[in-house]
Amino acid sequence: MKKAVCIISGGMDSAVSAAIAKKEGYGIVGVHFNYGQRTQKRELECFRQLAEDLEVEERYEIDLPFFRQIGASALTDENLEVPTGGIEAGVPITYVPFRNGIFLSIAAAIGEKEGAEAIVIGVVEEDSSGYPDCRESYIRAMERAIDLGTRDETKLTIKMPLVHLKKAQIVQKALELGVDLSHTWSCYQENGDACGVCDSCRLRLKGFKEAGLPDPISYRM
Amino acid sequence: MKKAVCIISGGMDSAVSAAIAKKEGYGIVGVHFNYGQRTQKRELECFRQLAEDLEVEERYEIDLPFFRQIGASALTDENLEVPTGGIEAGVPITYVPFRNGIFLSIAAAIGEKEGAEAIVIGVVEEDSSGYPDCRESYIRAMERAIDLGTRDETKLTIKMPLVHLKKAQIVQKALELGVDLSHTWSCYQENGDACGVCDSCRLRLKGFKEAGLPDPISYRM
Repeated sequence: MKKAVCIISGGMDSAVSAAIAKKEGYGIVGVHFNYGQRTQKRELECFRQLAEDLEVEERYEIDLPFFRQIGASALTDENLEVPTGGIEAGVPITYVPFRNGIFLSIAAAIGEKEGAEAIVIGVVEEDSSGYPDCRESYIRAMERAIDLGTRDETKLTIKMPLVHLKKAQIVQKALELGVDLSHTWSCYQENGDACGVCDSCRLRLKGFKEAGLPDPISYRM
Repeated sequence: MKKAVCIISGGMDSAVSAAIAKKEGYGIVGVHFNYGQRTQKRELECFRQLAEDLEVEERYEIDLPFFRQIGASALTDENLEVPTGGIEAGVPITYVPFRNGIFLSIAAAIGEKEGAEAIVIGVVEEDSSGYPDCRESYIRAMERAIDLGTRDETKLTIKMPLVHLKKAQIVQKALELGVDLSHTWSCYQENGDACGVCDSCRLRLKGFKEAGLPDPISYRM
């Protein structure tokens, strides 16, 4: 059975991306990163629930404590506040320097070990927070680098099935594929009820609203 | 002062590469990775000595315990033996899947945080063990991926000053630049006296021999 290494953060986008890969017939190698982010605990719980839901064949829970050493993001440095006033233009303070580069590199190492054919990542370019490492052009460049930097017989395609979708379309896709969105987490700052006001909550709530569906998780406000 | 993030493994190649960057006028941000390799202890000691020698301005000692979770290399899996019979064609069992991809991605995150202009890596393409992630074409592709995946204002060049040198030339360069090679470590398996028979010891000893210079470290055989 062909294998895909799916980066599963615990959020909606990566859950739906993994479900798409499963539908395409891949055996799923689920990879989750604990990178010292504020909501690490909740995201890990969601990963484990989603891994059950998706009947993930092999799991890697990877600890990356060094992200806190580097910091430089409101997600990994408690001294920087998570903005709650609404989405603004430009790269926000929640951007974690080259996070997806680090995640994809580790996924490539796992993919090479596992003899996988694909890496699946839930990046969304248009309806997102303006993170440079979520752009299609970047992911394609990374795919090429991974191809050149691994064994000649290792052939890893990077799949990003949601890259040009809007959040409302992703909510719809989850419904079609039977992804249980109560098992996903988006909030940047809370491990209990979601805050509802960080950029990630706002994008999620907007997606549900435009899709005309209720969000199954609890919010503080 | 312009800054360069120098990946310093504790080996000769990265030490000489960092010394070249220093001579070019960069302030050195020294990054070392403890990735669960057999000789982690000795390499970390060498990094610390070299950081003193090179008057490194800022140091990052980054723990990457997950490399042992992935394994698939004789350097990170104690169940696989380090070959000692001489260098063979092809990618050896000491290859660590996409190691330099992971290292460069983390160096990029640090470089973005630090506002650095360059990342310096001591890869050697020709006179090495046939690792795919030491090829110039790969490093150039990674440079492009890092450029696309970081903030638009982040401009990180990857410097690999030794990529087309032979080990004997690297020994000569160390001498010219005053790099103390007794503060470097190459052996894949020993933390005490070097084994002298792994691929890395063989390449090092051949380099010294061809340069007509004695190796200042101790060998078991």
